[in-house]
This record gives sequence, structure tokens and C-alpha cells, in this order.
Amino acid sequence: MTNASIITIGDELLIGQVIDTNSAWMAQELNKAGIWVKRRVAVGDSHYEIRKALDEESAASEIILITGGLGPTEDDITKPLLCDYFQTRLVVNEAALQNVKHLLGTVLQRPMIERNLKQAEVPEACLVIQNKRGTAPGMLFERSGKIFVSMPGVPHEMKGMMTDHVIRFLRQQFRVPFIVHRTMLTAGVGESFLADHIHDFESALPANIRLAYLPGFAMVRLRLTGIGQDARLIQQETDARFSELKELTGEWMVTDEDITLQEAVGNLLKKQTRTLSTAESCTGGYVSHLLTSIPGSSAYFLGGLIPYQNNIKEKVLQVSGKTLSEVGAVSEETVREMVTGALHLFGSDFALATSGILGPDGGTETKPVGTVWIAVGNRDATETRKLHFRFDRQRNMELAATNVLNLLRKFILSQP
Amino acid sequence: MTNASIITIGDELLIGQVIDTNSAWMAQELNKAGIWVKRRVAVGDSHYEIRKALDEESAASEIILITGGLGPTEDDITKPLLCDYFQTRLVVNEAALQNVKHLLGTVLQRPMIERNLKQAEVPEACLVIQNKRGTAPGMLFERSGKIFVSMPGVPHEMKGMMTDHVIRFLRQQFRVPFIVHRTMLTAGVGESFLADHIHDFESALPANIRLAYLPGFAMVRLRLTGIGQDARLIQQETDARFSELKELTGEWMVTDEDITLQEAVGNLLKKQTRTLSTAESCTGGYVSHLLTSIPGSSAYFLGGLIPYQNNIKEKVLQVSGKTLSEVGAVSEETVREMVTGALHLFGSDFALATSGILGPDGGTETKPVGTVWIAVGNRDATETRKLHFRFDRQRNMELAATNVLNLLRKFILSQP
Repeated sequence: MTNASIITIGDELLIGQVIDTNSAWMAQELNKAGIWVKRRVAVGDSHYEIRKALDEESAASEIILITGGLGPTEDDITKPLLCDYFQTRLVVNEAALQNVKHLLGTVLQRPMIERNLKQAEVPEACLVIQNKRGTAPGMLFERSGKIFVSMPGVPHEMKGMMTDHVIRFLRQQFRVPFIVHRTMLTAGVGESFLADHIHDFESALPANIRLAYLPGFAMVRLRLTGIGQDARLIQQETDARFSELKELTGEWMVTDEDITLQEAVGNLLKKQTRTLSTAESCTGGYVSHLLTSIPGSSAYFLGGLIPYQNNIKEKVLQVSGKTLSEVGAVSEETVREMVTGALHLFGSDFALATSGILGPDGGTETKPVGTVWIAVGNRDATETRKLHFRFDRQRNMELAATNVLNLLRKFILSQP
Repeated sequence: MTNASIITIGDELLIGQVIDTNSAWMAQELNKAGIWVKRRVAVGDSHYEIRKALDEESAASEIILITGGLGPTEDDITKPLLCDYFQTRLVVNEAALQNVKHLLGTVLQRPMIERNLKQAEVPEACLVIQNKRGTAPGMLFERSGKIFVSMPGVPHEMKGMMTDHVIRFLRQQFRVPFIVHRTMLTAGVGESFLADHIHDFESALPANIRLAYLPGFAMVRLRLTGIGQDARLIQQETDARFSELKELTGEWMVTDEDITLQEAVGNLLKKQTRTLSTAESCTGGYVSHLLTSIPGSSAYFLGGLIPYQNNIKEKVLQVSGKTLSEVGAVSEETVREMVTGALHLFGSDFALATSGILGPDGGTETKPVGTVWIAVGNRDATETRKLHFRFDRQRNMELAATNVLNLLRKFILSQP
């Protein structure tokens, strides 16, 4: 297999002020192209550490992808360092210069300063990768059959370069095997229990097909990865094993595609040409955000109400004042009436509702932090669940969202 | 300085199926404790790669923190590997065993299987770190003055161990210097322009105080980091430089705390005891989600409406049918009427509204993808802005949210 290492540069990574989402995206794209990511390393804005990482990773892998440290400020040292590392000098790249002028002058309409123009300088020995989305060009070097690619750390700039140029170049340069992934999402079963249940299946897998468990919020993703030189054969073999796995997981399987739960729900609604609305108290818009993050969701998502105060539940969703005063907002009756209210307000086929105490404050003896009621329904029926979480606010919110979306999915499927 | 390396184990990281949020959190906590993270390395579920990483990182750092590979399934090889690496053998830890039994039997009420009980086995030579939030205990080893800590990859389990035990142990073990961070958030100014504007300030900084630029969505965070042995002195020095920086950034500064824009808006509302509601079309609940992610936000956030279809804008928010048919939903008039509608519906002091085309589809010649109208207001006045973004759906949504929250912040500040 062709191996790649990813080096991410920047003190901000070592201090934890930004979360590295680039590496995961790059790994996905490389994997799809048949290139195995062997190591990912993050180092600070230090000459010594960057050089050390370049030495070590080029000893371990054929491809070394570098992001970060290409900005216009003093702490961005990658470009001069690479110039030195590959014993070359900086020259102005005419296309990059035109790009800087166009971006700053025409698109952003910002004043252009010396610092910006310096972005168009590149090491003479590299192949320049133009950056349509920003001012810093990418740089590709070759040494002893190893390929080094330096790209900006700004996610959409890096992604543009990878998609437009880098992946194609690497596929041409190296003879890569064919990699197939088949992924399913399961819910309602723990990782250990699942592992026991499919133990015999896992043991019987051939050497070129691997199974991985990827636990998430109240869900476990199972992934089969097949590797081989014959594209058709490895696809067939992996598909056959995946069919076995589907039989074994049965009811637990949420979807047999590598998509999120909200995408699975969206696909179901689209297929049935049904519509959905939400009434989110404790989840505060998070479920709606998950649903509307999907392109084209306006085909089935009609809208949502976030009744963060009781009087809004009463006034806009027609939750009865009696319910609120007698059993409270965090109750089965309330979420049930919220579903009915949302169905009326938005005129949707289905609706979901959440109400709970996510913490860290607001708990009582009878309703401690982590108590959440969820409901889903249509004009004919409503299903409710009481949940207890014991984590932090963010995680409790994720779990409430996952649970209500999965309850909705099952409810839709159960309809005649 | 005391240096740490973080090793993250798991094929799922190399294939990009999960984003590593653990490392950033760990780096933050270590930094606060005066420990510098020198390198972060991610390796797969491979004996060779894990041993290599242990050798390399223990040569580079005094502290080696390891996460992942402690689950109950076949691909979790960290524990036997560490046993071998430190030449010891597995023994049952009684406290860990009781914990497994309690978690599975009492809390989760799941059947207990052999695989679960194995979680209670630990290498004899290690100090066991109990895991209150899961079944896999943590393990701490010492060799030649270096400390190795292995923890589960499940974020809340790792975080619990770090907070309850590991940080305190490390602070006691190593004599760490004092580190001070002062961070501000700026908006409305590009990184290059800002860098030029504060160039003289940056050049005049003493060697023990560093400036870092952390660009985000339409915002740049500036961070001063001071390092020294005298806590009071380094705090004073850093504070003095930070005051200079505040003068220089002036109007661009959103907040002088290391908080998010939504927290800054929340703090402002809390201080003025004013309330807020939202009417989100294109952002689909995302702004409300940002606001309600903050603990205690129910003190000022009354609720939100997501009118994802025009008839809901008309029916629930009283946007006039004439406006919608004549100038359309993505228009200044519509967001203006949405603000008025939200103020009435929720009875809040302030309201914000968004309407736009985030893509990838839905653009027209006069309103291309990336066109977004935002508005903020109260009973007396409304402010609107037309924005143009040219990125993907997710990024356009982030930018719309950032812009409307910053417009709201300025609007609140401008009120008599």
C-alpha cells in the first residue's frame, strides 16, 4: 500500500485553541483514493520541530501532506523553512500574484499591502498549486520518489486544492490498490454486546477485509474495509460480507449507508413525500439545525418552534396551562401536546418534541439534571419516551437529539 | 518547560471517520497547568506503530498521554501492548471490577458478558485510574522519570480522568512554570491588515510573551501567552501588554475574554436584563442552537421560530403576503418584518432574523447562492445587512450566524 503522513503545523493546535478537522477530511479523501494514512502529527511553529517531523514522516511514508503556517503573519514559518529544506530560493509566481490582486482588489475590496504581495512568492523548486479561495498558494516538492505537499490550514482552501489537484496527482504518481468501504449505522445496542453478537462473523473475515467499530452518541457505526488489486472482485467480496452483517444486525441497523441519522430520516421523508416540523424546548434548535444542515431539506422540513419559556408553549403551541402548572414542562403530557401543537402550527405530516433539563443547573429532586422527555407523532398517534442522561450539557443535548430522531425514524417506518 | 506528547490510537482517526476533539481539550488543560504540548501523534491499531510512537514520544517529552484502543473489542490492543512494553502481566483490579459490575448491572441494566469483565484487568506495574463514567480503567506508568498515562478515547471518560486525577498528579510530579493567556476576539478586520496595524506592538514584545493569531469565521482571535517562574510578575506583564493591545484594536474588539461571540452577546443581555428571540429561515435553528448551548441562556433567550416555508413566515410571523410575492423571502423587507414578528410573538426586547440561500442549490440570477439578508432590532428600530458568501453550505451558515450575532451585539451597545 502507498502510505501517507499528515503533518499539521501551528501552535494553536498544541494549545488546543482550534480543533483539527482538516486531518479527518484529508484522511477520508486519501482513503477513498486508495492511499493509507499511516500517521498524523501536529507540531508547533518551531523550525526544529517541523524539520524533525519532515525527516521522520518522509522516512515512514511516500506521501507527506503538510497544512498550516502559510499565512501572512510572523508566526507563519512554513514557506521559508521549506525553501531551506529543499535548498531552493523564493521567486514571485505570476499566477499567484494575479490571484492575490484579484482576491483582495476585486472580491474582498480591501487595501493591498506588502504583506499580501509576499503571499505570491514561492520556492523555485516546487510545483505551484493555485489557490482559488485564498491568497496562499500550495507547493508540491519531490525528493527521492517521495512527494511533499504544503497547503494552507484554512479548511476550504486546503479542500479546494486537494479536490482540484492533489488527489489526482497522487493517484497518477503511485500505483494504488482499490479500497472499498461499506458502513452501517446501528442504534439501541452497546459496543460489547454487538461485538459478541457478531464475533463469529468477524473471526471468519478474510485477511483483506477488516471490521471496525466506531462508537458515537447512542449509536455504533460498523465499517467493513476491503483492499485488493482487482476493483470488481474486492467490491463483490466486501458487498457479500456486508449482506451477512446486515442480516446479523437486523433491527439494530438504522441505515446501510455511510450517512448520519438525520440524513437517514430525511431520505425516508423524501421517499414518502411526507413533511416534518419540530418543537424543541431543551434541545434549543439543535435538532432543527441537524435537519437543515442537509442540502435540500426544505423539501420535507416545514419549520420549527423553540418555545424556551412556558408562556410560548402555551400561547403558540397550545400546550394547556393546566398541564404546565400540574405536571410541569418536563413531562409526558407536555411533549405530547407539543407534538400536537407543532402539527397544527406547521401543518406537517409528522412532528417531534423535546423537553428536559440538560444541566448543569435546573434539576430538582423529582426531575434531576439529565431528565428529558421526547415525543414524535402524526395526526393519529404519538409515541413518547422518558430518558435519563448523566453527562454534560453538550453531550446530553447530542443524546436527546439522537434519541428523538431515532424514535421518529422508527415511528415513520411503523406507519401503515 | 515540561513537555508532553499526546498519542491518539485508532484506525478510525487515520481513515477520517471521527474528528479528534480529545487532543485539543487535553492540550488546553495541560497548558493551563503549565505543561507545553510539544507534539500530537495519531497512529492506527498496529503494534509496530504504537510501539514506535511510544519510543519516539518518550524520547521527546517527559509526559506521554495516550488515548484510545481500550475498548472491549478485538481491534483494541493498547492494554496487552502496554503490558508487554512495560514487561508486566495482567491482573484483575478489584475496584475496576466493582465499577464494571455497577455500571452494567445497576446503571445501564445490560447483560454482563465475559468481554465486559475483562475490562477490569490491568497491568500489574501500573497505577490504576478509576473510570467513573465507563468500564475501561486508566493506567499510569513511570519509567526513567517519564510518565505514561493511558486513557479511553471516549471523550467524557477521558475528561473525567484528566480532571479528577491526571492533571493533579502531573503538577505534583513536575515543577512547572506559570503560564498566562489573555485572549480577545476581533471582528470586521482581516488577519493581514490587523497584523500590519499591530506590527510595532508585536515587535516590541519581550521574549517571554508571545502573540498568536487564531482566525475563525469572520473573526480573528488574538492571544498573548506569557511564561515565567513568578506567577504575579508574569500576570502583571501580560496584563499590561494586553491593555496596550486593547487600545490598538479599538472598535474591532468584540470581547476581551476567551469566550465565543454568542457568550459575549449572552453576557451583554444578562447585564442589561434584556431578552432575545430569533426568527431563522436560512440558518435553520443554528443561531438558536449557539445561544442555547450556553448554560443559563434561558435567563435571556425567550424562544425562536424557524419559518422554513413562506406560509409560516406569513401565518406565524405576520410577514405580509405582498412582501413575499413582490420582493421574495430573501429580501430586506422580509427580514425586517421577521424581526417585528418575532418581537410580537415572543414578547422579547430584541430579535434577530435571517433569510438567504446557503446552497448548494436554490440560487437565481438576481439572488445567487450565498445571498443572505440579516436583521436585528427592538420596538424602536431595525438594522439590516445584505451579505454575500461564496463557500459551502456549512461555512455560509457559520458566517451568517457570526454576522447576525455581531450585528446584534453592536445594536445592543448602540442603544441609549
